[in-house]
Amino acid sequence: MSCDFLALANAGIQGLHPYQAGKPIEELQRELGLDHVIKLASNENPLGPSSKVVAALQAASADICRYPDANGFELKAALSERLSVLSSQLTLGNGSNDVLDLIARAYLEPGKSAVFSQHAFIVYPIAVQACGARAIVTPAKDWGHDLDAMASAIEPDTRLVFVANPNNPTGTCFSAAAFTAFMAKVPSDVVVVLDEAYIEYNSGEDLLDGVNLLAQYDNLIVTRTFSKAWGLAALRVGYAIANEQITDALNRVRAPFNVNSFGLVAARTVLTDDDYLQRGCAVNATGKQQLQEGLARLGIDYIPSAGNFIAAQFEGDALAIYDGLLREGVIVRPVGVYQMPQHLRLSIGLETENRFLLQALTKVLGS
Amino acid sequence: MSCDFLALANAGIQGLHPYQAGKPIEELQRELGLDHVIKLASNENPLGPSSKVVAALQAASADICRYPDANGFELKAALSERLSVLSSQLTLGNGSNDVLDLIARAYLEPGKSAVFSQHAFIVYPIAVQACGARAIVTPAKDWGHDLDAMASAIEPDTRLVFVANPNNPTGTCFSAAAFTAFMAKVPSDVVVVLDEAYIEYNSGEDLLDGVNLLAQYDNLIVTRTFSKAWGLAALRVGYAIANEQITDALNRVRAPFNVNSFGLVAARTVLTDDDYLQRGCAVNATGKQQLQEGLARLGIDYIPSAGNFIAAQFEGDALAIYDGLLREGVIVRPVGVYQMPQHLRLSIGLETENRFLLQALTKVLGS
Repeated sequence: MSCDFLALANAGIQGLHPYQAGKPIEELQRELGLDHVIKLASNENPLGPSSKVVAALQAASADICRYPDANGFELKAALSERLSVLSSQLTLGNGSNDVLDLIARAYLEPGKSAVFSQHAFIVYPIAVQACGARAIVTPAKDWGHDLDAMASAIEPDTRLVFVANPNNPTGTCFSAAAFTAFMAKVPSDVVVVLDEAYIEYNSGEDLLDGVNLLAQYDNLIVTRTFSKAWGLAALRVGYAIANEQITDALNRVRAPFNVNSFGLVAARTVLTDDDYLQRGCAVNATGKQQLQEGLARLGIDYIPSAGNFIAAQFEGDALAIYDGLLREGVIVRPVGVYQMPQHLRLSIGLETENRFLLQALTKVLGS
Repeated sequence: MSCDFLALANAGIQGLHPYQAGKPIEELQRELGLDHVIKLASNENPLGPSSKVVAALQAASADICRYPDANGFELKAALSERLSVLSSQLTLGNGSNDVLDLIARAYLEPGKSAVFSQHAFIVYPIAVQACGARAIVTPAKDWGHDLDAMASAIEPDTRLVFVANPNNPTGTCFSAAAFTAFMAKVPSDVVVVLDEAYIEYNSGEDLLDGVNLLAQYDNLIVTRTFSKAWGLAALRVGYAIANEQITDALNRVRAPFNVNSFGLVAARTVLTDDDYLQRGCAVNATGKQQLQEGLARLGIDYIPSAGNFIAAQFEGDALAIYDGLLREGVIVRPVGVYQMPQHLRLSIGLETENRFLLQALTKVLGS
């Protein structure tokens, strides 16, 4: 090599460890020669697609040669109506990962910092480091965000604070009252990114819905996704809602065709299918109950979850359990990179999938 | 507003003017109430989709709820075989725009610079500025890149040089010999990005194919796309081919699910449909001839093009012609942002579309 091209890259990039995605089913089948494999590793909607979406995509096939609408006019109009915000407050992304990246690229660079919690979604540290900015990580409290500690950790060079409600991979959440108290402590020129990728699964009292707070806080960005409860992970559609100035900044960094045409059509269509959303949330509630009871029966501790997954805690290193489950044809997610080496994140599946997982777990723990 | 959130953004972002995409057909129909509108504005493949792709996507619908394969295993395997490169030399992107962005984010930051030519594809200046890096723009020569001037413009802080062959929107190209002579002058620690988005349409003697030169130049990245000759603009698939170190750096910045599942399937499928590629190139060659002859008949000058579009030169400001064409139901592309205020970029369409464009042009020029 004529030159060390990794050393030539920006310092932030050199230290970056890319996100490790869940093992694809085909990969495990290739590796272990297994026929029946289930994947409960990526917090996907187990329902399968909305039939309305499938029909809409069939019609969209005629336009595969055409670029997507760079402004996502119709999807933004639908979201604008549903959320009672202006289209000019919306930024569409290639999944919410893209949206989080756009936020980091707009507000972070070398010499600036961002605050997030231990055990928080790993895209935050990756996005911050990719911009060459400094990460300020606050210790978790009961596996969740310590919002007081996060507010106190803000420094003069801090531009962003990332909070997730519920958080992945812990499943922890906080109340509207706790968030309001937190926002009162955040300086008005520090932007808070409230990641609501899993909001549709959350329930209970004093429920936080960031969109309702946008009028109150200029320095708030709410991010959401169609990849979870809306069942469109394959098609990569996420979005941010914020004031028009922030939205302007984000759209300046955004690549014009960052959301593909099929994603635009599917998202617009599934928004008209509330029944699909409700069924998914109901299946998740039942499945959560099933998995929690199963884990309790096996004497396995877990973090109470507000999402569509459960972080289960094992004795010692959970990787041995992970490997055992793989050999039984079940893919779950190790979360060692989240400083949770004793946990595995189990996505909540259909009743049969959850049962298969619990049977495999029984077998692996007994062997 | 409690704070100026645009002023709070990184300096590079504040000065950014986002890419202006071609006007969507629906938008023009909404605005002018027109029924018959043709779009020859975005250098799309006019053939419509490969039937093999449409069939493959129908099958892919079952997996809409699942995340894409983060590593694009099968598409990379197919590309690897076709191009005789290693999978570890490939970086997949959400269109080649994403790939160009990844390259800029990996190698540029405040204090570094990139060289590109006047009239070069506008994503280069946007990607450079979004990273807060300095742009060094060399004057064009006969509308094309002045490769000598570009090599001479490299400064100590230069990390990247962007060259496009053919270039959009000028359609200009350079020979393999010219490129080899250029590479001989570029320091080995300056990375050259050879953008071959339109390579499939290029023809003639001493044809440059960057992939053949990768073994020779460690500091070369070739970028390509499925959006043009392969007809998949809607689905956003592009890629970079480079040495493994550069590829490692790019994949560290890359978001894991940056290419959607439908894009992965469609790209893999269309690679098996060489007939589709050939038909598209043949239609383009005939259509180019048709448009060139039509323009000559109308006394309109144009830049000879190696792509699937022609930059036609009008007297005075071309925006009046653009507006006139819109009213006739034809969308083409003004290129004022490319410092080409007298030109319009005409994408080459089907025979009937080209004829409709030439008729509309005759009408507009005569009125």
